[in-house]
Amino acid sequence: MKKLINNAEDVTVEQLHGFGLAHEDIEVHSDPTFVSAVDGAQDRVAVISGGGSGHEPLHGGFVGLGMLDAACPGQVFTSPTPDQMVAAGKRVAGDRGLLQIVKNYTGDVLNFQMAADMLREDGIEVRNIVIDDDVALKDSLYTAGRRGLGTTLIAEKVCGAAAREGYDLDRLAALCRKVNIFGKSMGMALTSCTTPQNGKPSFDLPEGEMEIGIGIHGEPGVARTKIKSADAVTEILANHILEDEAYTRALPEWDRAQQDWVDVEVKDITFQSGDQVIAIVNGMGGTPLSELYTVYAKLAEVAGRHGVKIIRNLVGNYITSLEMAGMSITLVKTDEEILRLYDAPVNTPALRWGC
Amino acid sequence: MKKLINNAEDVTVEQLHGFGLAHEDIEVHSDPTFVSAVDGAQDRVAVISGGGSGHEPLHGGFVGLGMLDAACPGQVFTSPTPDQMVAAGKRVAGDRGLLQIVKNYTGDVLNFQMAADMLREDGIEVRNIVIDDDVALKDSLYTAGRRGLGTTLIAEKVCGAAAREGYDLDRLAALCRKVNIFGKSMGMALTSCTTPQNGKPSFDLPEGEMEIGIGIHGEPGVARTKIKSADAVTEILANHILEDEAYTRALPEWDRAQQDWVDVEVKDITFQSGDQVIAIVNGMGGTPLSELYTVYAKLAEVAGRHGVKIIRNLVGNYITSLEMAGMSITLVKTDEEILRLYDAPVNTPALRWGC
Repeated sequence: MKKLINNAEDVTVEQLHGFGLAHEDIEVHSDPTFVSAVDGAQDRVAVISGGGSGHEPLHGGFVGLGMLDAACPGQVFTSPTPDQMVAAGKRVAGDRGLLQIVKNYTGDVLNFQMAADMLREDGIEVRNIVIDDDVALKDSLYTAGRRGLGTTLIAEKVCGAAAREGYDLDRLAALCRKVNIFGKSMGMALTSCTTPQNGKPSFDLPEGEMEIGIGIHGEPGVARTKIKSADAVTEILANHILEDEAYTRALPEWDRAQQDWVDVEVKDITFQSGDQVIAIVNGMGGTPLSELYTVYAKLAEVAGRHGVKIIRNLVGNYITSLEMAGMSITLVKTDEEILRLYDAPVNTPALRWGC
Repeated sequence: MKKLINNAEDVTVEQLHGFGLAHEDIEVHSDPTFVSAVDGAQDRVAVISGGGSGHEPLHGGFVGLGMLDAACPGQVFTSPTPDQMVAAGKRVAGDRGLLQIVKNYTGDVLNFQMAADMLREDGIEVRNIVIDDDVALKDSLYTAGRRGLGTTLIAEKVCGAAAREGYDLDRLAALCRKVNIFGKSMGMALTSCTTPQNGKPSFDLPEGEMEIGIGIHGEPGVARTKIKSADAVTEILANHILEDEAYTRALPEWDRAQQDWVDVEVKDITFQSGDQVIAIVNGMGGTPLSELYTVYAKLAEVAGRHGVKIIRNLVGNYITSLEMAGMSITLVKTDEEILRLYDAPVNTPALRWGC
C-alpha cells in the first residue's frame, strides 16, 4: 500500500484537520464529525449532504456559499452515523428547515432517515431526497436500487443556489427530486483502489482488463472486458446513458400528513433530441486530467449524434474512489430553472464561480 | 499500460481537442499547436508559458483572464518547439511586448530563447524569465541548474494579474524574477508514471519504497528510502525548503543594450521567521486529494515552527506527472505586491476566484 498517511485509523480525522486549516471559511467539528460553512446561520432552508470518505472533494469540498451548509463524512467507504447529521443539522438549520441530499447506498439512506427522525423531534423540519442516477445496474452490493453518482454534485449545486434564492423546503425538495430524475450516470475503472484499513486492492483488475459500470466503493461493475480505446469506452457509457429508458422506482420520502416514511414512485426521463444538458466527465482519482478531456471530446460527439447538446461541463476529479484509475460520465438535463441555479455564484473549495 | 487514450501518437492533439470543446473562452490552434484566451488582443503586455504535456492542468489550464494569454504544450514530457511560441506570441502580443515564463529544463530554455529571437525579428519585444525553484538538487537529467516546479504557477498568476494592471514589460520581468527568487519547491513520489509513447513506467519504484526529490518527468530524485509516514515525508520536504540557504546562480535573460542573451546573477532567499507565504501542496496526479490535506496539516505545523505563516494555499493537482502518486510542496514568500496580485481576479479552467 502506497499512501501519504500516518495511521490507517486516523486518516479521516487527519485529512479533515488539514482541510479545516486550508479553508478558513469552513469549520471542522469533531465528536461527532462534520464540516460546516462559517456563515452557517441563516434565514433560509439549510442543505446538508454526506457519505463515506474516500470520494473527495465530495462532499466537504462543496461546502460553502451557494452550495452545502454542512457535510458529514463517514470513515473511508463507510456511511456517516446519524449523530453526525443531527449535530450538523442543529448547527446550520434555522426555522425554515433542512434538506438532506442522500446518495442511494443502504447505510446512507437508513442513517440519514434516522437523523431526520431525531432532528424532527427537536423541532427541525427535514426532507431527505435520495439520488439514484447510476444506470449501470438496478441493484448492487451496497444498494437496493440504483446507486448515487455524479447527479449528486449537480443536486448540491442547484439546491444550494435555490436555498439562497429563498425557496421553501417543499419547493426545494421538489427541485432536488427533479434534478435526480433529470440526471443519469455511469462509470468505469482501469484499476482497483485500496482503502487504508484493508491495505490491499478492493478487487483484482489485471493488466489488460477494465471494468464497466463500476461503483465508487471498489465494488465490481457489470462487465469486465479487455481494455478498449478511450473512444470505445466513452461510446459504451454515453450510449448507455443517452439510451437508458425512463425508469420507475420507489424512493423513500418523509410524508408530513402521515408522519411517516413512505415510498414515493419516481420515474426518470429518457434523453430526447433537443435536450440541453450539463455534463460531468469525472475522474475516479488516479486518471490524469488530460485523459478526461479525451473522453469529453468523444462524449460531446456522441451526445451530438443523439441531438443532445452539452451547454455546461465539468471535467475533473469530483467524486473519486481514492486512487482508482477510471472515470464516470454524468448527464443532467437542464431547464430554465436548473440552468439559472447552476449558473448562480458558488464559492466552495472544489467549485467556484461568479464570486 | 492502463490509460484512457486512443493512439499513443495522438494523445496531445486529442486531449487539446477536448479541452477546447470544454472551455469556450479558450481557442485551441494547430499547426503549430497552442492554446490562447479568446479575449487575447490587448493594450497590455502579454504573458505566455508552455512546456511538455503530461503536467495538466499546467499550462493550458491557466490560460484565461488574469493569468496566461496563451500556452504552448509540447508532446508528453517534451519541450514545445519555437514555432509554437512564435505563433502564440504573434497571436496575443500587442505593442507592449511579451513575457515568456519558462520552467528550467534545457529544451524549454533553448526553445523559448529561439522563439524570442524570432519574435524580436518581427518587432515584438520579448523577455524570458526562467523559473528554477526546485531545492532538491543542483543539476538533473533534464536540467542544468535547478528545475522549475510549483513557483511557476504563482509566477503565472501574479504576472498575469500585473499585466492586467498595466505593468510595462521591464517591470513585469522584474516581478517575475522576484517571484522566482521568493519561491522554493521540492517533490516526492510513491510510484513512477508511464508515458503513452513508452508504455512502461519511466523508472522502477518497488512496493515499500519512495523517492525523495523527484522531478516531474519521471526522472529519479535524490534519495530512495523505505516509505515513511505522511508526517515524516512532509517534515523532510518542508524542512529542506524552509532551511534551504540562499542560492546564487546565473540565469539567461535578454539584454536590450547588448542585444544578446546574457547570464544574470540571481540570488534567492532564505526563509526567515516572520515571513508570510503562499503554500502549494501539489498532487502528482495519482494521489487522492484527501492525502494532500494530511500533508497540508503537517506543512502548516512545520512552517509555524520556523515562524513562517501560510496566508494563502492551494491544495490539489496543479503540476502533475501523469498518474504518478506523490506530491510536491511549494512555498512562495509574499510581499504587499505579490499578495495583491495573487488575490486579484482570475478566471481559468483550473484556477478561478474573484470573478
